[in-house]
Amino acid sequence: MTEALSSAAALEAARGLAAGFARNAAARDREGGTPKAERDAIRKSGLLNFTVAKDLGGSGGSWLEALAIVREIARADSSLAHVFSFHYYQLATIRLFGSREQWSKLHRESVEEGWFIGNALNPLNTDVLARRRVDGAYEWSGVKNFASGARDSDLILVSAREDAVVGAGLKPAPTPLVAAIPTRREGIDVRDDWDNIGQRQTDSGSVAFDRVVVYEEEILLNPGPLSSPFASLRGLIGQLVFANLFLSIAEGAFGAALAYLRGKETQPWFESPARTAQTDPFILRHFGELWVKLEAARALTEKANVRLDPLWAKAEALSAGERGAFAIAVATAKVATTQIGLEVANRIFEPLGARATASALGLDRFWRNLRTQTLHDPVDYKIYELGNWIVNGSLPEPTFYT
Amino acid sequence: MTEALSSAAALEAARGLAAGFARNAAARDREGGTPKAERDAIRKSGLLNFTVAKDLGGSGGSWLEALAIVREIARADSSLAHVFSFHYYQLATIRLFGSREQWSKLHRESVEEGWFIGNALNPLNTDVLARRRVDGAYEWSGVKNFASGARDSDLILVSAREDAVVGAGLKPAPTPLVAAIPTRREGIDVRDDWDNIGQRQTDSGSVAFDRVVVYEEEILLNPGPLSSPFASLRGLIGQLVFANLFLSIAEGAFGAALAYLRGKETQPWFESPARTAQTDPFILRHFGELWVKLEAARALTEKANVRLDPLWAKAEALSAGERGAFAIAVATAKVATTQIGLEVANRIFEPLGARATASALGLDRFWRNLRTQTLHDPVDYKIYELGNWIVNGSLPEPTFYT
Amino acid sequence: MTEALSSAAALEAARGLAAGFARNAAARDREGGTPKAERDAIRKSGLLNFTVAKDLGGSGGSWLEALAIVREIARADSSLAHVFSFHYYQLATIRLFGSREQWSKLHRESVEEGWFIGNALNPLNTDVLARRRVDGAYEWSGVKNFASGARDSDLILVSAREDAVVGAGLKPAPTPLVAAIPTRREGIDVRDDWDNIGQRQTDSGSVAFDRVVVYEEEILLNPGPLSSPFASLRGLIGQLVFANLFLSIAEGAFGAALAYLRGKETQPWFESPARTAQTDPFILRHFGELWVKLEAARALTEKANVRLDPLWAKAEALSAGERGAFAIAVATAKVATTQIGLEVANRIFEPLGARATASALGLDRFWRNLRTQTLHDPVDYKIYELGNWIVNGSLPEPTFYT
Amino acid sequence: MTEALSSAAALEAARGLAAGFARNAAARDREGGTPKAERDAIRKSGLLNFTVAKDLGGSGGSWLEALAIVREIARADSSLAHVFSFHYYQLATIRLFGSREQWSKLHRESVEEGWFIGNALNPLNTDVLARRRVDGAYEWSGVKNFASGARDSDLILVSAREDAVVGAGLKPAPTPLVAAIPTRREGIDVRDDWDNIGQRQTDSGSVAFDRVVVYEEEILLNPGPLSSPFASLRGLIGQLVFANLFLSIAEGAFGAALAYLRGKETQPWFESPARTAQTDPFILRHFGELWVKLEAARALTEKANVRLDPLWAKAEALSAGERGAFAIAVATAKVATTQIGLEVANRIFEPLGARATASALGLDRFWRNLRTQTLHDPVDYKIYELGNWIVNGSLPEPTFYT
Repeated sequence: MTEALSSAAALEAARGLAAGFARNAAARDREGGTPKAERDAIRKSGLLNFTVAKDLGGSGGSWLEALAIVREIARADSSLAHVFSFHYYQLATIRLFGSREQWSKLHRESVEEGWFIGNALNPLNTDVLARRRVDGAYEWSGVKNFASGARDSDLILVSAREDAVVGAGLKPAPTPLVAAIPTRREGIDVRDDWDNIGQRQTDSGSVAFDRVVVYEEEILLNPGPLSSPFASLRGLIGQLVFANLFLSIAEGAFGAALAYLRGKETQPWFESPARTAQTDPFILRHFGELWVKLEAARALTEKANVRLDPLWAKAEALSAGERGAFAIAVATAKVATTQIGLEVANRIFEPLGARATASALGLDRFWRNLRTQTLHDPVDYKIYELGNWIVNGSLPEPTFYT
Repeated sequence: MTEALSSAAALEAARGLAAGFARNAAARDREGGTPKAERDAIRKSGLLNFTVAKDLGGSGGSWLEALAIVREIARADSSLAHVFSFHYYQLATIRLFGSREQWSKLHRESVEEGWFIGNALNPLNTDVLARRRVDGAYEWSGVKNFASGARDSDLILVSAREDAVVGAGLKPAPTPLVAAIPTRREGIDVRDDWDNIGQRQTDSGSVAFDRVVVYEEEILLNPGPLSSPFASLRGLIGQLVFANLFLSIAEGAFGAALAYLRGKETQPWFESPARTAQTDPFILRHFGELWVKLEAARALTEKANVRLDPLWAKAEALSAGERGAFAIAVATAKVATTQIGLEVANRIFEPLGARATASALGLDRFWRNLRTQTLHDPVDYKIYELGNWIVNGSLPEPTFYT
Repeated sequence: MTEALSSAAALEAARGLAAGFARNAAARDREGGTPKAERDAIRKSGLLNFTVAKDLGGSGGSWLEALAIVREIARADSSLAHVFSFHYYQLATIRLFGSREQWSKLHRESVEEGWFIGNALNPLNTDVLARRRVDGAYEWSGVKNFASGARDSDLILVSAREDAVVGAGLKPAPTPLVAAIPTRREGIDVRDDWDNIGQRQTDSGSVAFDRVVVYEEEILLNPGPLSSPFASLRGLIGQLVFANLFLSIAEGAFGAALAYLRGKETQPWFESPARTAQTDPFILRHFGELWVKLEAARALTEKANVRLDPLWAKAEALSAGERGAFAIAVATAKVATTQIGLEVANRIFEPLGARATASALGLDRFWRNLRTQTLHDPVDYKIYELGNWIVNGSLPEPTFYT
Repeated sequence: MTEALSSAAALEAARGLAAGFARNAAARDREGGTPKAERDAIRKSGLLNFTVAKDLGGSGGSWLEALAIVREIARADSSLAHVFSFHYYQLATIRLFGSREQWSKLHRESVEEGWFIGNALNPLNTDVLARRRVDGAYEWSGVKNFASGARDSDLILVSAREDAVVGAGLKPAPTPLVAAIPTRREGIDVRDDWDNIGQRQTDSGSVAFDRVVVYEEEILLNPGPLSSPFASLRGLIGQLVFANLFLSIAEGAFGAALAYLRGKETQPWFESPARTAQTDPFILRHFGELWVKLEAARALTEKANVRLDPLWAKAEALSAGERGAFAIAVATAKVATTQIGLEVANRIFEPLGARATASALGLDRFWRNLRTQTLHDPVDYKIYELGNWIVNGSLPEPTFYT
């Protein structure tokens, strides 16, 4: 447990972490696996408590500040930023879906125990079944995938469907049960099976549940998932966190390319009218164009970011219309950061030349990270939702994704 | 002369003008020529005095408000918005290049006489020569082109080079003379020769000067063009006005397309999975994607817009660095609005179908207007300037364009 | 009636026509209306008979040659190329839908009488009703729109639905009646009501039918529309003609831009590292990039073009698979020419500068023509058809469009 | 040594190799290093002799056939295709730069000894110095980088500059010495130091030369590098080989994505109007659009490919104009395959979803391979060369790259 952090101190701490992570980010990307030392550094920083209310032992930081912290870390290492931001995301989920008693207890414990909270909540995966025992408790069994940050976590949020409810494939079951349980509970096996092309240190593999006992008071039923405009902010917070991660990966790529170009001592291409690579018209053009796009992604993300705290403060007074307007701003940021991010991460190589492909530099990790994470849910349907709102005035229906 | 307008009243007046202009914008686009009735409506609205200081008889409106007014009008009619915004631009030029005596006199007269100020200042055109007479006055002769808004104007700003100075083609002469003179002065022939594919009612044709007498007190020499960071805000204000016009044309195009689609009663294409054109996935996709881009253009333009008033207030205390940082923000907005605007104006037809090409609708005018106006100065070099700043830290050298 | 033309003579004649059309294409674009003199020049050229079999009095030209002729004309004037190519298209329709007796008679008469055949067959328009009279003849009533080339034509192809058949809005009625009747028949009113933003001299307006008598032998029932893979080549020929027109408009735009740039004597932009506009790196970049795209559009169109004659020669022996493979090649060309064409027509202005927007040059007509004609049927669904074929192996179902 | 292969047999052999390589291409990509077993399989296939003239023991295969073979292999494994195609490239270099005596001897020996020829010729690297000894032989010292395929090769082509000639950084020295020497000669150290993000099994690392003796008869002086239009075909052949590799990588990516989608059993996204992922409109759209682009890249590459054999047959009779026209076709193909290839390799993930990022699938290797190899020389300057030719009629000046 740590002391409350001021905004400035929190940002400073994030910068410190980021600087450390940057040193071996490329090497750890190659290794994959669980970045234990770095996760422990996050634990020690006190930043995990930043968004918990002061009266529950936290720093009472705002979403705007929290997202700024996430971005600092994500520019250096998007895997760590992913699991770090997911900790805030799970805390928020507990707040949104649980009763006051539940969230005040869990938030306080999270601070006191120094928890790092993981995720096993993938709503599209309906494999985990909750069977009620005669004593009222449940036994949960099945396998969750894409469980980012579950390894080396202390608490996880898990979703299941009640045995009676028929699953519906990719369509998220309308009312899954969501529980917050200790990661080390008997019957839980957090597998070390994440080996994907990007976000390689997010441990987004699978978690197996074998008749895991889940007590009723661990299930977030009141008000429960998607039960109100406020509760359904959950999906939007997730989307906004993604937009910030996408943006930061692009910023990281751009910054790395810039540093590389500035440090380059070679002459420009022999057909160039310029005397240095740094003044070659086509090289400058790439950086100029990408700058404009990055600035656009930044502006849209920041416009969405500033809207969250006031809505969060409204709590259950939040209206469907207010939630919907925010959904549009978030979707706009997410589409822009996806499209622009991928363009930046792909195009930075163009003005750098063949030597920039050395594995030691690891400049491809930005593209691999972004390519992986942007597939979380299809950007095509975010664009479609925006179109449907513009043309028909239909706000996105609240789900875990919209 | 009119009374001072509050911000709200000014915006309301702009909306009223815009509503009126919208009614026959497509028809007037076909006609071209000078929109005399509409120019007189602008005169009557009192908006021409909006940016003049209150103690000089104006409304003391801010740049932020003025640009909002310009955008209202530009969404409906970008030709009128062009010449209207150029009036503010010329007032600003008088302020930036002239002595306090000059600008306080001219601003006050502008209000009192109800002037509409035109432009004959094209810095790339070095055809107009200023020859000094023995009595100290000058005689200016030559032809200026791209003199937007000179027709039906009361005062024009003109640039000339002194006879001795050798012109340098496209390179703007470093220190042209700039004068503010009555449009009706003897020897001035404002020609009715603008017939271009877009911005057809901007009268951006030529003005011929035949031994026009220009008195020394009419020449803005103190501090003079580009003489300081503050004086060289002039070029940036022009660029920012352009960015706002480009954005507004795109907004106008998007709005017109949306209105058309919503009013369309036909069925969707026969291969569509949807039952109405308004829910066709590809049609929604176009609107969704263009929305994201428009939002980006808006965000970047607004970020630049809010920066102008504080810099303007600094006056001669403005530093080169502050001016340069603003130049970057303006260039960013200009590049984004150019690229996005053209995409919007071109692509709106895609989801509308062949009937949307009826001349009566005039939906092509957005593309023609934007295509014409975005060629004012090459966007390729704006991108280049941005690249040069990012890579080499070089702020754009102050000129009439950068 | 004219003599048979060799390929070389036909191409030469097309070049002659094109050279003449080019002289006032920009002016006629502004005028709109029916280009009577130019249509008569086409009549006199003998080219209208080029695809008619030699034994029916024609030149026996191949489709490959015919499309080359169309492209020559289209580069200079896409309106005239449109109605000219539609003449071939109607001749082909008669061949594909009609009995041997019908097409040999009509083709021969077309040559002998010097017909220019027009179109009133829009399959999406189901307004024209055919009512059977007791004597077996029909009376057709209703209004067809998008009837390109009907004005100043001698014969028109018209479609109608039998009174009993319920129309299906945008979905083309599966078996419309298609008849070839004299344009001057009583009850036909070819209206002068085409006033759209592009293809302004195609007379693609409406034709009203007021109880027009249509005799059974004028209806193309044997084999009839879409009755076989061969008969349903009709839609593909139309699509291929469009691809050739789109490509040629883009080529025309590129050529005009190139000529303009080469003739330009001004210096490059003042920030350019080059000494002439013609060697400015960004200007060369635009032309280089557009060249690559144009070459791609050309290659894909030519690959589709060469496939038609062998399929045409198979006549009723043509299999659904062969027809389907051709449909894919045609769709590929159509998508590429649409996307690339629009980019070329929009982007040519970028390296030319503001003076290139003079109305007298009319360089916007390429964009307006292409923008109008590419909306004939939605390119989004052509892309969709290609995707459906690639992923699922589903060949496009034969319709008037696919 | 192997028997002559017919075209059909050669293509069949290539397919066999490709099928084998495909089985572990993703795994070998992760490993990097020298694919010894696969290189030996190529040796055994007899394909290394395919382009050697029959009277020298080879198969007398054409360039068109050789490029088709390269493409077969490249779709499965672009690293092996790279070093394999470079063998043909080095044989061609010997032919183009060497005397008849030299190339007939070396080609014959290559067949007889079963050589795999490597590359240490990077013209931009001017580090290797040739010092003449009193006995007329040279001693070469220095380090070459980007020496693709030098490891496990039997002969390498090396370039050096004579000690007296001053190097010029990135500007290729106009007349480097080029020699063909045994890879195992004393003083040569082929380093195992290639560890880049793509083309990981091309061994494109460095080769160190420590006073390596090079005999005069090993130097290709007659006619020598770039000495005639024919000799300077060398650079264009390299560029064309690259275009074929780029295209094939894109085809490989597209094919792998298609196979993945077809094998996917999940439902579509929950907002989709379709019942299967395979009929989702946006998923089909991605494949449709990419298909059109791939077809364009294919068409342009094939248009360039067919032009090489006739020019090759002209030998020293080849004119500068013929060579220049070919350079344009090659540059066109190279630009298109670069741009389209990168788009394909990046975008295939979009319709596949997050599971497609599993490392075991290795679908990112297409992007990494292409991203690496397309940086060989800057595509920006290929576009510039094309622009300069179109606008100014200037054919690219023959160099090792143009």
